[in-house]
Amino acid sequence: MIQFENEYLWELDKSLEGIMINTYETILKEKKKGTSGYFTLGSDSLEIMEDAKQLAQTNTFVKQCDTVVVIGIGGSSLGTKAIESIFKHKTAGVKRMLFLENPDEIDLSDKLVSIEKAKTLFCVVSKSGLTIETISIFKEVIEYFELDYKSPQKEQIVAITDEDSALHKFAHQYGIKTYNIPANVGGRFSVLSAVGIVPLTIAGYDTKSILEGASAMAESFFHGKENHLLKKAALLTKHRKEASINVIFSYANCLEDFTKWYVQLWAESLGKVDIYGNHTGLTPIGHIGSVDQHSFLQLIMQGPRDKTVTFIKVEKFEKEIKVPNIKLKFLEKTDYINGFSFNELIDGECEATKESLSHVGINVDKITLDSLNEKNVGRLILYYELLTSLCGIILEVNTYDQPGVEMGKKILKNKF
Amino acid sequence: MIQFENEYLWELDKSLEGIMINTYETILKEKKKGTSGYFTLGSDSLEIMEDAKQLAQTNTFVKQCDTVVVIGIGGSSLGTKAIESIFKHKTAGVKRMLFLENPDEIDLSDKLVSIEKAKTLFCVVSKSGLTIETISIFKEVIEYFELDYKSPQKEQIVAITDEDSALHKFAHQYGIKTYNIPANVGGRFSVLSAVGIVPLTIAGYDTKSILEGASAMAESFFHGKENHLLKKAALLTKHRKEASINVIFSYANCLEDFTKWYVQLWAESLGKVDIYGNHTGLTPIGHIGSVDQHSFLQLIMQGPRDKTVTFIKVEKFEKEIKVPNIKLKFLEKTDYINGFSFNELIDGECEATKESLSHVGINVDKITLDSLNEKNVGRLILYYELLTSLCGIILEVNTYDQPGVEMGKKILKNKF
Repeated sequence: MIQFENEYLWELDKSLEGIMINTYETILKEKKKGTSGYFTLGSDSLEIMEDAKQLAQTNTFVKQCDTVVVIGIGGSSLGTKAIESIFKHKTAGVKRMLFLENPDEIDLSDKLVSIEKAKTLFCVVSKSGLTIETISIFKEVIEYFELDYKSPQKEQIVAITDEDSALHKFAHQYGIKTYNIPANVGGRFSVLSAVGIVPLTIAGYDTKSILEGASAMAESFFHGKENHLLKKAALLTKHRKEASINVIFSYANCLEDFTKWYVQLWAESLGKVDIYGNHTGLTPIGHIGSVDQHSFLQLIMQGPRDKTVTFIKVEKFEKEIKVPNIKLKFLEKTDYINGFSFNELIDGECEATKESLSHVGINVDKITLDSLNEKNVGRLILYYELLTSLCGIILEVNTYDQPGVEMGKKILKNKF
Repeated sequence: MIQFENEYLWELDKSLEGIMINTYETILKEKKKGTSGYFTLGSDSLEIMEDAKQLAQTNTFVKQCDTVVVIGIGGSSLGTKAIESIFKHKTAGVKRMLFLENPDEIDLSDKLVSIEKAKTLFCVVSKSGLTIETISIFKEVIEYFELDYKSPQKEQIVAITDEDSALHKFAHQYGIKTYNIPANVGGRFSVLSAVGIVPLTIAGYDTKSILEGASAMAESFFHGKENHLLKKAALLTKHRKEASINVIFSYANCLEDFTKWYVQLWAESLGKVDIYGNHTGLTPIGHIGSVDQHSFLQLIMQGPRDKTVTFIKVEKFEKEIKVPNIKLKFLEKTDYINGFSFNELIDGECEATKESLSHVGINVDKITLDSLNEKNVGRLILYYELLTSLCGIILEVNTYDQPGVEMGKKILKNKF
């Protein structure tokens, strides 16, 4: 169960209601036309999930692996990492996952040293198949582990890429197991395609329930039952000049990678030149409560009033730890929290912060997960993807491309 | 050696030059009056550093510890963590450091399980001495490890707090070793006080060189030799309406915690109601290159032109890894990077991104560290602290308080 509540001080006028209706019609058309394929990944990915499960259970090499290495960057790793971070603490017997993302020498050498070749499956993930960081790191992995991709050792490599990409052709040439990313699913919307589902399933995560949660959210939305999403999209985009920054405050450490996934999704989808040639978009920031209350809250409260805040909280964790009933001399002022659980403390901090922001006129909303289970996380992923698409429609941008990064790529190539 | 270069497209007019002169005079006065005490921590903390070193070398219990646990949140942990993250990979023989910050039940229980009581020193860090998260976690540590702070076991606790704080009184009552934070050094400016220096020194880091680097930067600035700082402060504040967001792109994974430290420093110091009653401030965002080029760059390039970007790069790491000279069939387009080091690749990405942003009219600057050594990091810390103070003076805010978080604290208390 997820609850969505908003306490927006902005009002929904007639013109916004019209925008909501048009936007809903547009996204229905997008779904029909297949503008983006992420809407139906909840069911489309079931087959891939079953195949990956089969591989993990029947392939002699994969079965005995204790580590799954994902070689990928950006949309090819962020979502997978987000899901792994949420569930690794609570899922018994999963394989360790390692992410080789950044071409950072310290990080790379530390991770390579920690990998035991004989027990590791390498997933190379690149939509285009030619991502320079990913393929360069893949080459390093080949050399470092003396990985012979032409021999039976190819079993320990899996390629996840677009059909007919260069990486696909390479994998096909040597009989390396390959999973395809649907052509109409962009990197940042791809976590529930083979990109995330394959490595997570092989590592032992309950991806089926994640997909079910995603399906449930998509179906509910396309049956007209998630009106709050349209309302949120209409308000955030309409007031984008006065509130150009959308902060997420997640009250759980294990959601930190999820907020990074959100930052990519929001920034890269909406930061665009619109059809009239204007620079538009909304700026995402991800924070963790209560830690970052000691960092960023002062600015939201008293700085420029250019932010909205979404609070994400979890009602119940599996492990409950109570603040002990200990009275320390001179520290009695802290005793009011004794006997309550740490989650009640963090919950209280979330509520208190939300109320104080609301009190001074800052627009906030709240997403409550009754627990951090797979279905809820699947729902939450679809929630943010749909919200992003809706905002993109209203902003009149192409939500699914990223032309702004091309210039840098060209300049880079000329440097070598 | 650190190099500071800016490629601002904004011009420095006469009025800004006047502001720079006035600001410099004001900060000289602040230093003289002791408005903040961080300016001289480079030398002021030497004594504390020596004392902590002594403790680590002569105290039988501390000597055999292999773990230093910091119990603290916000300014009491961020800076320490930033320094540890930078140097843990390259400093031989250091003790493991663990940070108990957030009252997060999963994080807390995972970390508690990983601690071996007999080999762990606990540093409780709270400026006010009554931080609710910190003292509650301290109570949990006492109960979980059956830590008897009234017995000789008190040797394994160190308190770092303001003189005469409640925590100070508690520690004094039971003879617990205490280090004081100077009254005029606020949490987010305190990393080079006992807050960071004590745990880092005990863990075995070369804090002396960090302090020397800080001293060198402060002296150089107060001898009028860092004019670029005044220029940057004048330009960033003057153009704060059009460019309200200051992004740091650090091209090294180990600088991620440093960017979090920057976010706190910038947000909490400058996000204020100014002396005229206006909400003012600048919004900090921290990113890591090249990973986040695949996430946030599109928004900077094509979204609203409301951002400046500072690139931080490291010229040389200790470990060099070259992209192997491997040609993979169908992937030949990536071969242009073969034979170059991964650091040359990441460097190229940094330059290419900077140039592409500059090309479309976005204001950027660059900080280059010749290597990630202690002196450079000390300099960099002072650089950002001074820059923050200068911006605060121009914005006419109190850089050193944080009144905006008080309302939340009051509401929190009423919830229990």
